[in-house]
Amino acid sequence: MSNVTPTTLKEFESVWPRIVADLEGHCKQYNLPQQSLDWFVKSLNYNTVGGKCNRGMSVVDTSSILLNKTLEPGSEEYFRAALLGWMIELLQAFFLVSDDIMDSSKTRRGNPCWYLAPKVGMIAINDAFMLESAIYILLKKHFRQEKSYIDMVELFHEVTFLTELGQACDLLTAPEDHVDLDNFSLEKFSFIVIFKTAYYSFYLPVALALHYIGAATPKNLQTCLDILIPMGEYFQAQDDYLDAFADPKVLGKIGTDIQDNKCSWLVNQALRKVTPEQRKILEENYGQKDSEKEAKVKALYHELKLAEYYEQWEEERVADLKEKIAKVDESEGLKKEIFEVFLKKIYKRSK
Amino acid sequence: MSNVTPTTLKEFESVWPRIVADLEGHCKQYNLPQQSLDWFVKSLNYNTVGGKCNRGMSVVDTSSILLNKTLEPGSEEYFRAALLGWMIELLQAFFLVSDDIMDSSKTRRGNPCWYLAPKVGMIAINDAFMLESAIYILLKKHFRQEKSYIDMVELFHEVTFLTELGQACDLLTAPEDHVDLDNFSLEKFSFIVIFKTAYYSFYLPVALALHYIGAATPKNLQTCLDILIPMGEYFQAQDDYLDAFADPKVLGKIGTDIQDNKCSWLVNQALRKVTPEQRKILEENYGQKDSEKEAKVKALYHELKLAEYYEQWEEERVADLKEKIAKVDESEGLKKEIFEVFLKKIYKRSK
Repeated sequence: MSNVTPTTLKEFESVWPRIVADLEGHCKQYNLPQQSLDWFVKSLNYNTVGGKCNRGMSVVDTSSILLNKTLEPGSEEYFRAALLGWMIELLQAFFLVSDDIMDSSKTRRGNPCWYLAPKVGMIAINDAFMLESAIYILLKKHFRQEKSYIDMVELFHEVTFLTELGQACDLLTAPEDHVDLDNFSLEKFSFIVIFKTAYYSFYLPVALALHYIGAATPKNLQTCLDILIPMGEYFQAQDDYLDAFADPKVLGKIGTDIQDNKCSWLVNQALRKVTPEQRKILEENYGQKDSEKEAKVKALYHELKLAEYYEQWEEERVADLKEKIAKVDESEGLKKEIFEVFLKKIYKRSK
Repeated sequence: MSNVTPTTLKEFESVWPRIVADLEGHCKQYNLPQQSLDWFVKSLNYNTVGGKCNRGMSVVDTSSILLNKTLEPGSEEYFRAALLGWMIELLQAFFLVSDDIMDSSKTRRGNPCWYLAPKVGMIAINDAFMLESAIYILLKKHFRQEKSYIDMVELFHEVTFLTELGQACDLLTAPEDHVDLDNFSLEKFSFIVIFKTAYYSFYLPVALALHYIGAATPKNLQTCLDILIPMGEYFQAQDDYLDAFADPKVLGKIGTDIQDNKCSWLVNQALRKVTPEQRKILEENYGQKDSEKEAKVKALYHELKLAEYYEQWEEERVADLKEKIAKVDESEGLKKEIFEVFLKKIYKRSK
């Protein structure tokens, strides 16, 4: 970034205790039994803190760029931008707690998933709801006086629903226990990644920053959609590519998309390119918990030269995005730099 | 009711298809895959329709009383009041779908619980979220222009959170697999029933009707809380009394509170009255899936004369409520009759 310094995870996390204190204070007016209050605080900390906080931090960084000055940690201005960022982290916590139950996941951020933690079980569902509710408690407490208050509330509602639509489509397209490649398509891939990931991870942080600084004009919001949604789609395709082709040591995890029957970018590109014989290999080996079958799918990916195809496709996507960014109209307070910063973090990442 | 005719379930249900069509229309703008749209519509119908709709219908009836004229089925005025009522039914559907998972329930309204329906399973969690989201889609579509729009949005947020707090307290106080009577108390009973039930079942319908007709003054809302929250508490105590003492043929179901380790009004009154020897009977027999043990608890309830105690307590509660209702200040558009109608439906009911 040019004139502004990006925030750090440490700075961003330093505002979290004040947020927990706000939520505790809100609950105390209801004379909640202490056991229930302690439980809520434990769930808040367990499920919201401990990730990379890229989404939340980008609200702060985007606000800094838009205001053309670094928001100073410790200032009220920093706190309010970070608070909006933490609301995205709460939204994500709401989704992850419930996704982990729906996907029967075992670990999250190196710990047992919340529903597998001692004494939690299906109470986790209600805890997920409470993480979502926390967003609106905080919005009301801190932004009720703002002109953009109802717009921010509606933005969270809309992005929440879009993410739920994406999750619904994902669960129906690729049930873990039933492989049907006819169900897959590049259109479905796009729908799932745009709805399940791109809106809340890419569009929401920038839209919130625009509301925060008072520059959320219809035109600016539309420009954000036009750039950030395709960028989110590119990001997820890259994620899928890395899942199969990255060095697990560099990636920090072992990819499981093939065994998990994921409607990934790679399998959809493969389906477009296969001969009938090759399709049979996919049919017989995709989506099964068997590492020999997984290896056969990977061998087919190599045969189809999907890595090379991805690398070429990536260059085209990036050129396209750069062209769109170059055309951004900054007259209503938007800045090209926002998108450049996002793109820079993604392009050619290896983990 | 004096000048107005109460609505019927048939009339109330007749607006439902228009609501589903609204939600389908909303989804169509996103080019949702047909399979996902069909799934959402199926979940909406399965989970929202088929109950008694007392909560939803009371928005219509309360609005009629407040306006001193019968809202005519088929009119736009009727539709909008019924739409607010259906939003409570959607909120309840959101809670019931998830409560049934958390409680491992088997049936709901005579059908398998949604999570036990074919191919559903844990997808039900995401479906529950979408039922909640539907509320805000409908509010935005139909009430965005109203002065009370943001107040209604905040009302739903607040009541949702209060219900989640009640559910959290209930789940922590009475886990199905661990009986600890020390965890119970009349204070906890009150907290659970007020938060988990009274706010959304008693306060929310009347508060929505007040917003709808433009009479939601702070004073009127406070009067509603002062009457409807104790009325909800009385209603739940009565529910607990009927669970143990009503004729199952009349009640239409067999009570299971004792076996289910519920923090019910009866067990808490029993705990207040027992000798150390009688407490031992409770400790040894409460909260176990064993009908002989259940019978021992019931025998103790009889020995403690809990039915007689309840009947006397009910008279006191009702006298208290009638006194409060008599004092209602109607100068800001509130009507005593609203509360009289609610009370009449509850007092001495047998099912």
